[in-house]
Amino acid sequence: MSYVAPIPDLLFVLEEIAGIGEIAQLPGYGDATGDLVRSVLEEAGKFAAGVLAPLNRIGDEQGVRLDNGIVRTADGFRDAYGKFIAAGWNSMPFDPDYGGQGLPWALAAAAQEMMTSANMSFALCPLLTQGAVELLQAHGSAEQKRSYLPNLVHGRWSGTMNLTEPQAGTDIGTVRTRAVKDGDRYRITGQKIFITYGEHDMSENIVHMVLARTPGAPPGVKGVSLFIVPKFGVRADGTLDGRNDLRCVALEHKLGIHGSPTAVMAYGDYNGAIGELIGEENRGIEYMFTMMNNARLSIGIEGLAIAERAYQQARDYARARIQSRAADSSDQAPVPIIRHPDVRRMLMTMRAQTEAMRALIAYTAGALDRAKRHPDVAERARQQMMVDLLIPVAKGWCTDTACAVTSTGIQVHGGLGFIESTGAAQHFRDARITPIYEGTNGIQAIDLVGRKLARDSGAAMRQLIGTMKATVETANRDLGERSLAPCLEEAIGQLASATDSLVAASQHERLAALAVASPYLALVGTVTGGWLLTKSALAARRRQAEAKGRDDYLAAKEIVAQFYATNLLPQAGSLSVIVLSGGDATLALAEDQF
Amino acid sequence: MSYVAPIPDLLFVLEEIAGIGEIAQLPGYGDATGDLVRSVLEEAGKFAAGVLAPLNRIGDEQGVRLDNGIVRTADGFRDAYGKFIAAGWNSMPFDPDYGGQGLPWALAAAAQEMMTSANMSFALCPLLTQGAVELLQAHGSAEQKRSYLPNLVHGRWSGTMNLTEPQAGTDIGTVRTRAVKDGDRYRITGQKIFITYGEHDMSENIVHMVLARTPGAPPGVKGVSLFIVPKFGVRADGTLDGRNDLRCVALEHKLGIHGSPTAVMAYGDYNGAIGELIGEENRGIEYMFTMMNNARLSIGIEGLAIAERAYQQARDYARARIQSRAADSSDQAPVPIIRHPDVRRMLMTMRAQTEAMRALIAYTAGALDRAKRHPDVAERARQQMMVDLLIPVAKGWCTDTACAVTSTGIQVHGGLGFIESTGAAQHFRDARITPIYEGTNGIQAIDLVGRKLARDSGAAMRQLIGTMKATVETANRDLGERSLAPCLEEAIGQLASATDSLVAASQHERLAALAVASPYLALVGTVTGGWLLTKSALAARRRQAEAKGRDDYLAAKEIVAQFYATNLLPQAGSLSVIVLSGGDATLALAEDQF
Repeated sequence: MSYVAPIPDLLFVLEEIAGIGEIAQLPGYGDATGDLVRSVLEEAGKFAAGVLAPLNRIGDEQGVRLDNGIVRTADGFRDAYGKFIAAGWNSMPFDPDYGGQGLPWALAAAAQEMMTSANMSFALCPLLTQGAVELLQAHGSAEQKRSYLPNLVHGRWSGTMNLTEPQAGTDIGTVRTRAVKDGDRYRITGQKIFITYGEHDMSENIVHMVLARTPGAPPGVKGVSLFIVPKFGVRADGTLDGRNDLRCVALEHKLGIHGSPTAVMAYGDYNGAIGELIGEENRGIEYMFTMMNNARLSIGIEGLAIAERAYQQARDYARARIQSRAADSSDQAPVPIIRHPDVRRMLMTMRAQTEAMRALIAYTAGALDRAKRHPDVAERARQQMMVDLLIPVAKGWCTDTACAVTSTGIQVHGGLGFIESTGAAQHFRDARITPIYEGTNGIQAIDLVGRKLARDSGAAMRQLIGTMKATVETANRDLGERSLAPCLEEAIGQLASATDSLVAASQHERLAALAVASPYLALVGTVTGGWLLTKSALAARRRQAEAKGRDDYLAAKEIVAQFYATNLLPQAGSLSVIVLSGGDATLALAEDQF
Repeated sequence: MSYVAPIPDLLFVLEEIAGIGEIAQLPGYGDATGDLVRSVLEEAGKFAAGVLAPLNRIGDEQGVRLDNGIVRTADGFRDAYGKFIAAGWNSMPFDPDYGGQGLPWALAAAAQEMMTSANMSFALCPLLTQGAVELLQAHGSAEQKRSYLPNLVHGRWSGTMNLTEPQAGTDIGTVRTRAVKDGDRYRITGQKIFITYGEHDMSENIVHMVLARTPGAPPGVKGVSLFIVPKFGVRADGTLDGRNDLRCVALEHKLGIHGSPTAVMAYGDYNGAIGELIGEENRGIEYMFTMMNNARLSIGIEGLAIAERAYQQARDYARARIQSRAADSSDQAPVPIIRHPDVRRMLMTMRAQTEAMRALIAYTAGALDRAKRHPDVAERARQQMMVDLLIPVAKGWCTDTACAVTSTGIQVHGGLGFIESTGAAQHFRDARITPIYEGTNGIQAIDLVGRKLARDSGAAMRQLIGTMKATVETANRDLGERSLAPCLEEAIGQLASATDSLVAASQHERLAALAVASPYLALVGTVTGGWLLTKSALAARRRQAEAKGRDDYLAAKEIVAQFYATNLLPQAGSLSVIVLSGGDATLALAEDQF
């Protein structure tokens, strides 16, 4: 169950897919030289494998405990967190003005993948802090930034997002938590559920970002405001004051991520928890959404990360487990099961899906860096359009795929896969949350079809499709493979037809369009993955030509792309048929016929 | 989390797909009149829902305990088992000569579905006993039958299968457990793992069927013999003698089916456990395989059953959970989430897959009854050929599909789905064993392609395809639906091409054929499911025409078939492309490149 950071592949996608060399030319990213990138990856890999990975099973087995209001994380978590922030892993992509290192998101995403592969439950803590930092950075007052950002960026304090209430899940406009003005602060009263790292013993303070409603606010999402509600009050100079009126009243007993506390939080049992308004009243949802892109990308990274971990474990087992003779040999001696074709198929599937996810994450994170830093305003806008388009795909497709990969990981182990101590089952359980939180994958699909596609009638998607087609031409010329380029070309055509059909349907048959939104998201993910692996195969071919020699890693990259093209990309055909068939049959049953 | 037995659908598939009316005409099945079938279904449904279903969560939460060699099942299991056997549920399909009721397997399968939906962990105990009964019925001596069958058929005693050892999982030819002749008995020594209900407190005796090797036996599968090794010795008259030298030394901590003990069994710690040889030495594997068909069908039934349970739970939640306004209304009030198109898509998918599985199980069980009882020897052979062909599909496809359905069940619940007390996660965990045990799904695919397809060069499959084509013609004539018959016709064509390609490949490119065996199995399952739902739609149309009126249940049957044709059957296209592409890319990577 050990973990080895996939440095060569991370470096490859950073260079060839994210374009880290180009990103390093953008204003403010000059530090991201090749040497630095390589050294950051290596150090992050060492930390992930050496410090975090050994705690993964412990977190799963021990879980978290709530004792009299105090949440205790599993043995070693607190210590590891201290090392994590001391080494600067919390501050990589943040503003140097507040102690951040100002490194590109593409690089931060690579480090985040490794930390999450090693220990998803642990990595959720900095993931939430990252959301809080971005929120304050974008919408906090100068004073709020001064008071909170340095410690959050450092990681000495951690952050949380308090959106959900029992009646307010997907529909956060229905929150009932109340905020009543009291001088220049507010008093917050209410209960929040599903608060990741809502209470724990790893950081010195916990800064809660809380959605609440002020008296007389308009109903729905337009009456929700956003507040900073710290566990310990914070003085203007950033030092800690007294305990605020908030507490963790329960922890959820969950299917997975046992090492990560999921808290029920009670605010204002006594006089109301003291909170500071962010920005203006009634604009809370709008502020929340500005950090949603990164948060959703982070969940996509979780999908990738847990898939990588499951792949490594299955591969190691398939090499070590000796069972049954080889089908292509008269020798009766049993062989490592990695030699059996069906096991090979499972491993290739896991690997190709994982590499496709990694490429999608790198491409999206690279676009994010350009959208933030490109000197040309039109290019920034173009890149932001691509980010907006791909974020729901990165979140939805990578997390659904992670569930499939971790399930296959169990299957490779046979009976042992079902035994908890093997560890494969933990990945399967941990992965299952990713299609749910930070907007269910159904919500991602609706975002993709109902907003991202509808707002420009598919223009951004057609632009992406155009970019993909250019790759087909290059692949036809440079690869000359039997089926790689033709497979991709066919799949792109299927994506184009489905897109046209859906854009047309969105205007007249809204319900039917929404009924096929999820298959459409899967289609976009499948084809984008195939496209980026074809780009990878092209780069691998080019690198080997330049080096005038075959390289095992690069040759594998081509084979994986070929496998994806013939064994996974064909799904695009059926997905496009489903989208084209429309959602009529989906909606035909009366509610009481179910 | 309550369970309601789906009596109307079970009755429908028994009548229209299994052909229970025709089966009742077969010799020995005369008791299976319409009235009896209906009453058996209703009583089994009541028992499952009233007695077993309430224990499902308890079994998951309490699990099983090993105290000083004694395994204690969860509260209520022992009592429920007493009621189960007293009501005669254990003996339904067995030989009346030994106290069985001699009812058709098709009917027994329906009852088994309900018991398993209600409580999969509980239902595993009679499932294993069923295997032991069949083994003895087929291969036991007259004396062994007299000594063991009456109590096993009744359920007073339960049975187990002891195949697996740490080094002998899929490759059972490598078992090391030893059996040394001692008078007319044998002394058995060795350790077995993964023994379902290997030890428990529900039955008065446990009859272990144990694979072991005699001194000097040939290596591999040809040197393995099969023994009856009872927990308590059995006198010739069937009464109990002293405790045998065998014990449970550990219970596994598993991902799911916590209510079902999975035992590590030690045989012969003292003088060797006393065992009786079944049949002749060295023919153990052959005997085991005669009961494999039913056992694998039973695991397919588990897949169906857990999917039905997950569907019911998701549907009930989707009706009760109020969240977000309707997309097709200007009304701002939140609605039950069953009104949202993406939730509808998930529920329709779960339902269509479940109904397709139920039809496949009924069709296969019906063929089993004909193969056993048809007066015409040629027809018996023809039916047996169909059973042999469909068993790996029923096992592999139903269990993979069950994993998908239970995962979707979690997703319908949103965040609550990840919380254990909701219950959706239990179905997801329980289902995950089904693709693994009784031959992994990879083994099922190899059985389908390497044996069932290869042995007659695809003749049986082509016969099935011919039967499917006849349904297309009827559907074209009688349904006139926009897309049902054409969708099925296209999918059948894809199955036919893939079959031809695979039959050809099996002869020359064995490894490459095995590399696409799993996608081929999925293809057969997907198309067979679509075919049987089309048959169901035709029957539903006919019944409504006969009754001269629309019926809600029957109308739903048609809509579900339509949904399957447009949203699930298209997968046949991509699966056939994968099969046709061959397994070359799957095998191209060197082992050290993984």
